Amino acid sequence: MNTENYVNQIVKHAKIASRSIASANTAVKNTALQYIAEGILSSTSAIKAENEKDVLAAQKAGLSEAMIDRLRLTDSRIGGMAEGVRQIIHLADPVGELLWGHTRPNGLQIQKVRVPIGVIAIIYESRPNVTADAASLCLKAGNTVILRGGKESIHSNIAIYKILTSALERAGLDTRGIQLIELIDREAIDYLLNADQYIDVVIPRGGEALIRTVVEKSTIPVIKHYKGVCHTYVDEYADLTMAEEICFNAKVQRPATCNAMETMLVHEKIAQRFLPVVTNKLRSSGVEIRGCDKTGKIAGNMKHAVEDDYYQEYLDLILNIKVVKTLDEAISHIATYGSNHSDAIVTDNVNSAMKFTREVDSAAVYVNASTRFTDGYEFGMGAEIGISTDKLHARGPMGLEELTTYKFVVFGNGQLRK
Amino acid sequence: MNTENYVNQIVKHAKIASRSIASANTAVKNTALQYIAEGILSSTSAIKAENEKDVLAAQKAGLSEAMIDRLRLTDSRIGGMAEGVRQIIHLADPVGELLWGHTRPNGLQIQKVRVPIGVIAIIYESRPNVTADAASLCLKAGNTVILRGGKESIHSNIAIYKILTSALERAGLDTRGIQLIELIDREAIDYLLNADQYIDVVIPRGGEALIRTVVEKSTIPVIKHYKGVCHTYVDEYADLTMAEEICFNAKVQRPATCNAMETMLVHEKIAQRFLPVVTNKLRSSGVEIRGCDKTGKIAGNMKHAVEDDYYQEYLDLILNIKVVKTLDEAISHIATYGSNHSDAIVTDNVNSAMKFTREVDSAAVYVNASTRFTDGYEFGMGAEIGISTDKLHARGPMGLEELTTYKFVVFGNGQLRK
Repeated sequence: MNTENYVNQIVKHAKIASRSIASANTAVKNTALQYIAEGILSSTSAIKAENEKDVLAAQKAGLSEAMIDRLRLTDSRIGGMAEGVRQIIHLADPVGELLWGHTRPNGLQIQKVRVPIGVIAIIYESRPNVTADAASLCLKAGNTVILRGGKESIHSNIAIYKILTSALERAGLDTRGIQLIELIDREAIDYLLNADQYIDVVIPRGGEALIRTVVEKSTIPVIKHYKGVCHTYVDEYADLTMAEEICFNAKVQRPATCNAMETMLVHEKIAQRFLPVVTNKLRSSGVEIRGCDKTGKIAGNMKHAVEDDYYQEYLDLILNIKVVKTLDEAISHIATYGSNHSDAIVTDNVNSAMKFTREVDSAAVYVNASTRFTDGYEFGMGAEIGISTDKLHARGPMGLEELTTYKFVVFGNGQLRK
Repeated sequence: MNTENYVNQIVKHAKIASRSIASANTAVKNTALQYIAEGILSSTSAIKAENEKDVLAAQKAGLSEAMIDRLRLTDSRIGGMAEGVRQIIHLADPVGELLWGHTRPNGLQIQKVRVPIGVIAIIYESRPNVTADAASLCLKAGNTVILRGGKESIHSNIAIYKILTSALERAGLDTRGIQLIELIDREAIDYLLNADQYIDVVIPRGGEALIRTVVEKSTIPVIKHYKGVCHTYVDEYADLTMAEEICFNAKVQRPATCNAMETMLVHEKIAQRFLPVVTNKLRSSGVEIRGCDKTGKIAGNMKHAVEDDYYQEYLDLILNIKVVKTLDEAISHIATYGSNHSDAIVTDNVNSAMKFTREVDSAAVYVNASTRFTDGYEFGMGAEIGISTDKLHARGPMGLEELTTYKFVVFGNGQLRK
């Protein structure tokens, strides 16, 4: 079978399966999730053996240590995968929720009901744990899923995928409810991204280049997360001790995450007092600082921040610092260089706080807290399939509800349009 | 200025204006809408004079009478435009609604707040009333809008557009909050559809070809409505008198609309009784019937429906009729040939009704009512900017709420991520 036919068959099967998966009740879906969690644990050694093939191939291909680390499945990571699936069992099933409803003057009863989206394609890169995570979240929300992982994790993905379909089968669900594209050639993605008759949404997870390609090629709606260029603005009315702790946490606690701070903006009135202290603390934790002219004058010898730096998602112990004259300048800086992800103000002044939360156009806007909290669990939404920097459909952490849509169900007794 | 620079300037201005338009309070937005409504009425003769240029050009170019009719602005249509804008004043402002919120164990207060989307591009074809409608809806929901109408209505659009910006100015709002692309070359659309840094969503309104082009070219999320291939299924348990009235209304009351019925599915057990009566009634109103073999045998001489007919949105007095063996066959037919728009079942049996509403994957699913009700006003949502057959973000009638998104606003007092 050639690639086109192969993909065609998968998308058609996904669409067919979506009718029964969408109607499956919560108990049946949870049973399947239970089998997935158990299957992952009982197949730990088989998964590790297949994963070892991927790791060896990656080493042979000379992939970076960081990339190989993302690829590697240890006992503890496999245990974490199973635990992640178990947690999804305990989340409320969003399907069937009545979102809105009323009776019209002509007697028509209109209900807006939450329903599964249908068929979701997930295109991801090296981390094989996405295979179990994403499939389980999609299943719980009543969706059929088509998985396309990175070629470097293909053996691991196939091993995990076998557990998924076997769980569907044991639970009495259509095994075509979860499908993995096992062909590793890139053409398969092209066919997938044009199957708009069968697939309802594409969620790419990975680097900016992957996401850009998906957006350009897809005729299917895409929910995406380009990058997190997050800011903390230290206002003239900030509690400087709190500001120091928040900025340190946002930069240092886990710099490789998308909600870590990349640029700190500091009001000029408190720059002289604040910058020496905070830069000392950051530097002592190994943070490289790139400052504007004023920052350099106040906090000593450092690399000069060039304009391009302000667009960077470093994902590393590097921080831009810029002194601003006003709150407005801070908001304008974020509008120009930010990525609409997570931005914070540290201030004791309620007017500054409200203006910032109103005018900063990001998925999450913080007052006096670290941007590191942007996360489904931390927001109390449960497991997330990603964080959207889009504005349509889903913004910020995407949990189970964001994997659903709605339909209007209308009950009448013979109403005719006049 | 070349086309690229021209479009670039418009999208940048739109983004800048979006900050103040998003923050404008309801009273100011309503004042601007009031000025728009008044301006349309007081400029009736100027609008008609410009519209006459478009109509003459269209006649010269040999456009169809139907197309020229869509283009033509009469006193009554201009009055209708003004009235449409006035109605938007009375709709509740969706911006600022608190959608969800709670306090986390660590004291973080998380609020999910409804906010404007930002910058919306509307690409539409001949009907110039869209210019006022779409701009007014976008403005009320706090969005900046970029309008790109059809070249055949350019004079009318410019005349209306002058009223819009003058109203913004008089209300003290940024006049760049509503912009019209006055260049008529197609290149302008290409630049627009790639301005994903500045535009948040594209809403195309027009024929399938326009929408397909937008979907293929755009790197910006698109909310669309391809077509309405709507079905009515007459169940074996239907009240046949009610079924006759509903089917007649769905086909004949206004056949050129997207929610009109294109295919009637009839259970074989009642076909013999139902088909002769209903086809007589339809034919007497000039409906051309294309039937399956069984329909032909029961209801006499008619065109045979070929497979391609079942995909057609006729928008005309033509109807496919197919006899089905089961409810499941009806649902499968709708899944294969339908457009996920509006589909109805006529039945007295609650199990058939519930199965149909659960399994038919359309924006609006009806029991015992005409599909013609799929409409923002009829659903009690107020004015609509279109009907979405997509599943993401907006499905079915798109009113003011569907022109908004949300953000998370988080208040802390120094919380750090552990």
